Amino acid sequence: MSGMLQSVSRATKANRVCNPRALSRNFGTSFAAMQKVRIEKDTMGELEVPADKYWGCQTQRSLMNFKIANDTDRMPLPVVKAMGILKKAAAAVNVKFGLDKVKSEAIQKAAQEVIDGKLNDSFPLVVWQTGSGTQSNMNVNEVISNRAIEIMGGEMGSKKPVHPNDDVNKSQSSNDTFPTAMHISAALEVTEKLIPSIKKLQEALHQKSVEFKNIIKIGRTHLQDATPLTLGQEFSGYSQMLINGIARIQDTLPRLTQLAIGGTAVGTGLNTYVGFDVEMAKEISNIAGVEFKPAANKFEALASHDALVEVSGALNTVATSLFKIASDIRLLGSGPRCGLGELSLPENEPGSSIMPGKVNPTQCESMTMVCAQVFGNHTATTFAGANGHFELNVFKPVMIYNVLHSIRLLSDSCDSFREHCVVGIVANEARINKLLNESLMLVTALNPFIGYDNAAKCAKLAHKEGTTLKEAAIKLGVLTSEQFDEWVRPEKMLGPVPYVPKK
Amino acid sequence: MSGMLQSVSRATKANRVCNPRALSRNFGTSFAAMQKVRIEKDTMGELEVPADKYWGCQTQRSLMNFKIANDTDRMPLPVVKAMGILKKAAAAVNVKFGLDKVKSEAIQKAAQEVIDGKLNDSFPLVVWQTGSGTQSNMNVNEVISNRAIEIMGGEMGSKKPVHPNDDVNKSQSSNDTFPTAMHISAALEVTEKLIPSIKKLQEALHQKSVEFKNIIKIGRTHLQDATPLTLGQEFSGYSQMLINGIARIQDTLPRLTQLAIGGTAVGTGLNTYVGFDVEMAKEISNIAGVEFKPAANKFEALASHDALVEVSGALNTVATSLFKIASDIRLLGSGPRCGLGELSLPENEPGSSIMPGKVNPTQCESMTMVCAQVFGNHTATTFAGANGHFELNVFKPVMIYNVLHSIRLLSDSCDSFREHCVVGIVANEARINKLLNESLMLVTALNPFIGYDNAAKCAKLAHKEGTTLKEAAIKLGVLTSEQFDEWVRPEKMLGPVPYVPKK
Amino acid sequence: MSGMLQSVSRATKANRVCNPRALSRNFGTSFAAMQKVRIEKDTMGELEVPADKYWGCQTQRSLMNFKIANDTDRMPLPVVKAMGILKKAAAAVNVKFGLDKVKSEAIQKAAQEVIDGKLNDSFPLVVWQTGSGTQSNMNVNEVISNRAIEIMGGEMGSKKPVHPNDDVNKSQSSNDTFPTAMHISAALEVTEKLIPSIKKLQEALHQKSVEFKNIIKIGRTHLQDATPLTLGQEFSGYSQMLINGIARIQDTLPRLTQLAIGGTAVGTGLNTYVGFDVEMAKEISNIAGVEFKPAANKFEALASHDALVEVSGALNTVATSLFKIASDIRLLGSGPRCGLGELSLPENEPGSSIMPGKVNPTQCESMTMVCAQVFGNHTATTFAGANGHFELNVFKPVMIYNVLHSIRLLSDSCDSFREHCVVGIVANEARINKLLNESLMLVTALNPFIGYDNAAKCAKLAHKEGTTLKEAAIKLGVLTSEQFDEWVRPEKMLGPVPYVPKK
Amino acid sequence: MSGMLQSVSRATKANRVCNPRALSRNFGTSFAAMQKVRIEKDTMGELEVPADKYWGCQTQRSLMNFKIANDTDRMPLPVVKAMGILKKAAAAVNVKFGLDKVKSEAIQKAAQEVIDGKLNDSFPLVVWQTGSGTQSNMNVNEVISNRAIEIMGGEMGSKKPVHPNDDVNKSQSSNDTFPTAMHISAALEVTEKLIPSIKKLQEALHQKSVEFKNIIKIGRTHLQDATPLTLGQEFSGYSQMLINGIARIQDTLPRLTQLAIGGTAVGTGLNTYVGFDVEMAKEISNIAGVEFKPAANKFEALASHDALVEVSGALNTVATSLFKIASDIRLLGSGPRCGLGELSLPENEPGSSIMPGKVNPTQCESMTMVCAQVFGNHTATTFAGANGHFELNVFKPVMIYNVLHSIRLLSDSCDSFREHCVVGIVANEARINKLLNESLMLVTALNPFIGYDNAAKCAKLAHKEGTTLKEAAIKLGVLTSEQFDEWVRPEKMLGPVPYVPKK
Repeated sequence: MSGMLQSVSRATKANRVCNPRALSRNFGTSFAAMQKVRIEKDTMGELEVPADKYWGCQTQRSLMNFKIANDTDRMPLPVVKAMGILKKAAAAVNVKFGLDKVKSEAIQKAAQEVIDGKLNDSFPLVVWQTGSGTQSNMNVNEVISNRAIEIMGGEMGSKKPVHPNDDVNKSQSSNDTFPTAMHISAALEVTEKLIPSIKKLQEALHQKSVEFKNIIKIGRTHLQDATPLTLGQEFSGYSQMLINGIARIQDTLPRLTQLAIGGTAVGTGLNTYVGFDVEMAKEISNIAGVEFKPAANKFEALASHDALVEVSGALNTVATSLFKIASDIRLLGSGPRCGLGELSLPENEPGSSIMPGKVNPTQCESMTMVCAQVFGNHTATTFAGANGHFELNVFKPVMIYNVLHSIRLLSDSCDSFREHCVVGIVANEARINKLLNESLMLVTALNPFIGYDNAAKCAKLAHKEGTTLKEAAIKLGVLTSEQFDEWVRPEKMLGPVPYVPKK
Repeated sequence: MSGMLQSVSRATKANRVCNPRALSRNFGTSFAAMQKVRIEKDTMGELEVPADKYWGCQTQRSLMNFKIANDTDRMPLPVVKAMGILKKAAAAVNVKFGLDKVKSEAIQKAAQEVIDGKLNDSFPLVVWQTGSGTQSNMNVNEVISNRAIEIMGGEMGSKKPVHPNDDVNKSQSSNDTFPTAMHISAALEVTEKLIPSIKKLQEALHQKSVEFKNIIKIGRTHLQDATPLTLGQEFSGYSQMLINGIARIQDTLPRLTQLAIGGTAVGTGLNTYVGFDVEMAKEISNIAGVEFKPAANKFEALASHDALVEVSGALNTVATSLFKIASDIRLLGSGPRCGLGELSLPENEPGSSIMPGKVNPTQCESMTMVCAQVFGNHTATTFAGANGHFELNVFKPVMIYNVLHSIRLLSDSCDSFREHCVVGIVANEARINKLLNESLMLVTALNPFIGYDNAAKCAKLAHKEGTTLKEAAIKLGVLTSEQFDEWVRPEKMLGPVPYVPKK
Repeated sequence: MSGMLQSVSRATKANRVCNPRALSRNFGTSFAAMQKVRIEKDTMGELEVPADKYWGCQTQRSLMNFKIANDTDRMPLPVVKAMGILKKAAAAVNVKFGLDKVKSEAIQKAAQEVIDGKLNDSFPLVVWQTGSGTQSNMNVNEVISNRAIEIMGGEMGSKKPVHPNDDVNKSQSSNDTFPTAMHISAALEVTEKLIPSIKKLQEALHQKSVEFKNIIKIGRTHLQDATPLTLGQEFSGYSQMLINGIARIQDTLPRLTQLAIGGTAVGTGLNTYVGFDVEMAKEISNIAGVEFKPAANKFEALASHDALVEVSGALNTVATSLFKIASDIRLLGSGPRCGLGELSLPENEPGSSIMPGKVNPTQCESMTMVCAQVFGNHTATTFAGANGHFELNVFKPVMIYNVLHSIRLLSDSCDSFREHCVVGIVANEARINKLLNESLMLVTALNPFIGYDNAAKCAKLAHKEGTTLKEAAIKLGVLTSEQFDEWVRPEKMLGPVPYVPKK
Repeated sequence: MSGMLQSVSRATKANRVCNPRALSRNFGTSFAAMQKVRIEKDTMGELEVPADKYWGCQTQRSLMNFKIANDTDRMPLPVVKAMGILKKAAAAVNVKFGLDKVKSEAIQKAAQEVIDGKLNDSFPLVVWQTGSGTQSNMNVNEVISNRAIEIMGGEMGSKKPVHPNDDVNKSQSSNDTFPTAMHISAALEVTEKLIPSIKKLQEALHQKSVEFKNIIKIGRTHLQDATPLTLGQEFSGYSQMLINGIARIQDTLPRLTQLAIGGTAVGTGLNTYVGFDVEMAKEISNIAGVEFKPAANKFEALASHDALVEVSGALNTVATSLFKIASDIRLLGSGPRCGLGELSLPENEPGSSIMPGKVNPTQCESMTMVCAQVFGNHTATTFAGANGHFELNVFKPVMIYNVLHSIRLLSDSCDSFREHCVVGIVANEARINKLLNESLMLVTALNPFIGYDNAAKCAKLAHKEGTTLKEAAIKLGVLTSEQFDEWVRPEKMLGPVPYVPKK
């Protein structure tokens, strides 16, 4: 065996053992070097593909033609899963429209393996392929047909008895399957992962809001000292932001759960049958466990992906909430001595080897970085969504890539932030109380008792001499210590009062 | 009188006559030079203000301290109007909470003048002021109090009998009034201007869809020839995009119509009364003609403006739709000879002095530029929305400025695009038909009759020799002219067919 | 006179007096109602224009066809000025290419009035017009020709003796004049306004850096206490950011100062003469006082405006610096009691009527809002820059509108922030010193003397008991008060030390 | 052995074989189940790590605490490589500052393995970690120290004889190493990959420009027919865009090649030695082959990463160019029958199984998707760059992730687009010529011969009757066929003419 062959072979083996990201780097190179190949064929001719892979010619061509970030930017797995759901549904529905039952069952079985993630390594294509996602649709067709052939005892690559186009793709076009998979994957990720993760974070914040409901603290507006509120009230605002965030995401579902399937190549539904779209929506709903329906207008469903831009807009809004919450929490936890110091955040890693109390707010940092990414992903999605032409928007892969990335990032970050930060937040009550009492803002409570002018004098004196309000007031002789304590009651400043008309 | 004084005075006069944008350039200069001033006072001391203006000290200070794009970037008028609505409502409601009835009526009358736009030149402040909008709130308080004083026969600047803070701003804080005005102004602009404008454009597109329902044309995917559809089907997609767009905007209203009023300085409602928020929401709804309610959580309502980020996200999505529609229409109208030439757009301006038919798609260009701006405004809004701290987001003015800008741009552009473009679009049926017949894509219709192989031969020959399919098929002898006309029927390719099982 | 006419007339008069922004709202309405009109003519026919305005038919048509944000979004004045420079230069250069000298002089005189801003009210068109800026080019041609006709004693609207196209636009096309004006205006605004404003702010920050060079303070990383630095060092970083920012902007000038003029309609230079471009660049340089040269490739110069996207990118970077600086300064000035309180910012407006020391960082807020806008404007510019087709990018107006807006905002904000904030910043040395001394981070200085383990014990004890390091160390008996003062010397922690090899 | 253990073990094995992306999913689970672990220790205590991995405790903690997109979003390998360069340089330089020579050599050897990518699977951390990149710095320190220990025959995890902090991280802090690695990695990727890839694409476009220099075609402005130019001129514009793009990127290098190293924790350089920064810059330059120098101001270099925002801005501008080029090419290649059809693009994949000539412009689609992503990445980078606080910007990982992603995408896409599209573009001369001759725009050439009025009549007649200009002119009797051919010479319309004064 030649040295070249050996070295390629060794590199490949090494990659499999050592570097999970590097495997694909070898796709598209001479497979002769890998010894075992089989020949696959499409309308452009024959091509060698790795013998142990299910994919066929069109997948292989895409690997050769799109070596773009090919070790990192693969078509997201939720799209692959959604394609599995779609193909399984199609195989079931197509029996009503002429598909052989035995083939249908083999296809459904293979598709189920796709859904279950058992064939994940059969989907090596990158995001940066054809803008319709055609190559990923063909990747799925090829893999399912070869696996179904295998199940039925046929020969891989023979396209018999299960043909990737005629059988697996029956009544379909890449132009309607890919957008259908986009909607299925985003809807599932949103409902199964994102909303539950936000919900759990919201509940954790609400829990803290309850826990902190009696801790009165200084309010801050313009970053300047303001009138008091409770720490619980402050956290209740965070909780509300996420309640709203969930509503925002849910309000996009009526459009996200509409499916393009049945539109085929340009939206007309050429080459499919009356009723196919309705049957498909039903079957997909059954398999996926989320209710889908046919798109109100299939021309719209192929030519624009505004539903994804809309979802991305909701994610963008949730990210503004999360950015604000994480920013506030890290500022409130700043210190330990020279910051605000109102909260102690959990210590998850060594902050400093020598300085106790140096706890870096790393979960907040991670969260705010994630939000920045979501903002960026939204710009990419918007740009892509606007630039479709005529019957087909051809920015499909980049759109679903960004939307799924944002969903994943937000889901995981909500979990991480909740688990490793929020639930462990401790209020530093002594510090909070000290700041509250040092504040000059409480002076507003004295107005009714000593008059505006005297109150202002107290505040000015305290500010000038660096003393507390109480000290200043006593020094000025406008009240006694007992009066101060009776009149200056932050707990009376936490809400509106009932109106009592003056007599 | 000194020459300097004269020249300033002359410049000012000139500006009033000639240059509507330049007036404000003189704000903040020595008003002594303008002869007529009056003295106004606030807690920082006295200040001269122009005698013929209703504003007071705090407005004047803002003019002096924020000379930033001061000839172009004023606080948008819809915010001023919303402030008028809010102040009128507060004057009415506050009678229940101790405000003198006579004063209340004067305030309401002055506020109504603000609503009616009669005092628009009293609101000179720029967007780039304090981030809470406090100065604009004080601008409104000062103007209404001075105008109410005038109505009651008092002396402007005396703060008697109507005090800007104690009376006009009673039970309020800038921190709850400004966000309330943000929501009112955006909700009104959306419901009264934007949605009707989109609706009318959608109807015009739908009308075209009906008008064009029998015109069969070539479909285009990847910008390449594809299977046919009707021009009416194509336009039905555009119509659907806007139907969805309206739904997207409407789905943000449940949060946009929640008002911060009653939260006062930090959300607690300190210095206001139980029930004030509910009464205010009712009264504002009455005046504005749109239903508002108190915010579910006032801490959220002051500290975050995610509701505006959400609205901006909906506008962003509508802009992706409009960008696509305008892009398609200008491409379809490209030519007259060397483009696609399927549509003729109205000729609104001279295209070229010598070349008939040179019609530039200027309305499409204007629309696509507007969409680019909306995308930019959305980035600004998002950034601002994420960066609030603690009890108060202090990016309020920039947020409402961008949201209202986007609403205005989209409203006006939908009207302009509809009136000056869409309604006048004419289909060039001859051209459309010629392209359809020249297309090779119709070959798919021959498969059932002459077989896939022969069909492919026809297409290949036509492509090679640059002839029509029909010519190629006849030359190959696979069918007759009559058969071609019978079998190749684009009108049969426009939808799914009923399934008929093979026997 | 009919009531309708009267009311229009009254409204118009009212607008002139009261509302500088509303004037344009009446453009495009029946001018019959305004009594004095004249008839202008173009290739599409005749049209009434206001008798007292210099503009002609094509301007009037644009007013009628683009009623989009027409009271706020006018073509920026720097573009108008740049057009004046261009037209003046062309009139001078064209004498060499056949233009009559007398006409040339009249055109130059009229163009100079445009440059001087004397005819600003003759340029009423909005940004949202044709994407090539053709209508603004014609606006300038019409105004200059009519004014030149007036100068030469002719009749406005007669196009004699100075024709807007044949004379004022000689050897030009909108397609090369408008991008030329874009570059001239941006280059002038950048060099004459923006860079000087940034420079002055940088110098003010540098001045503060010098002033604060001996004030040692706690450093903060992750918002957590860290090792010390001087306040001067901290400000030196801000100064450096702006030094870099100026370099970033200057590095874009080699491309921004290239001019499209000479490319005419599609970049070939059809209808112009060899040498025209070079002469124009020279003459424009003379008039403008900034050196320009012909574009390296005129096809690029018409078809793409990447030079503006690049400039916008530099502005975007400067905005990230300014956002950071303003954010830091407001955080350092937070308090007065419950924040960091290291800096006192100038008190420009009443913060609170009762609480001394409540100084809202309004200049920081204004600056950060401006930065958010610049980020948004950059997105709009990028989107527009990417979407040109073939020989002409038709997003010209929106691009220059956003770039000039950002330049103006940054220029004005740098001035305002410097004047009303930076120069008046006072370091609260007592507070700074107190925080430094309370910090536990200084413990690192004890390692060499008492060993790592003892040092750690000191820090842990101090943290636990809430005491100072010194108190903890003395309590632990690991050093004396004098030793602590000798060993813990923050002033020794401000830089690297010379290496002294251990023996 | 328990079933649980077995199943974990099996899953892990399966992942190694099947799914290169799934490996990391198991990080952080109980390693007891994996049988072979070793104990590592940090200041927070002991932790099990996989026995066959070089990383230690802090890496392991990060894996446990940040399970965020952990199968896709790893710290980019170019950062790991840059860290290797930095650590190798530090080991060399530190010999001058007290590091033992033998240890230095072992560290350098281990660092070289990092540079060579031999230890890539030792860097499992995600982007979404601490915002300073501390955990990735520690990951490198741990891996290099363990590998150096191994080289020196010690026991992994013992920290002897090579300590991760004291030796590998000597004179450094995460706060200066990570930004240094950011700059090194971006500078290397830009100079070694991106600029060469753009250059090659520019050369290919230039080559086409030369190849097409005699093909005269219709120009298009506003997507409408305009005056002619050559296809070569059109492509020369594309070439120029990339020449400018390279200059734009290069102009950012003066700031990108400045290194933070020597600033340590807060920029002061505490714990390092005078001269260390200069020596490091020299040594890094030697190893990397690109010239670096110490940052002008280290406070700036830690606290802001504007240099990366600037680079991202340059990438953003290059993406606007590439988006435009790819868009134009796909439009010019639209058809084959019903589009513009001026270019034939290489057929890389089956377009349609039955329709010859259906070539989807997939490389253009991939390129435009990549550009959309670069725009989004730029938004993320900008947002992150603006939000640093005080002495340390803690958005470091997200910034370098996005910048490197954009660089990689643009590099790979330039290669792919060049290789699979540009070099294979064929001009359809017959089609180009046909469109040119059918155009009415050539009528402008007749003005001097038959007068403007007659020329206009020709054009109008041709437009009305759908004939050619020539046919119309002959029909009108204003010229002969020979005269038409003599006078209408598109080849004379391709540039400016020498001025010849009229006599």
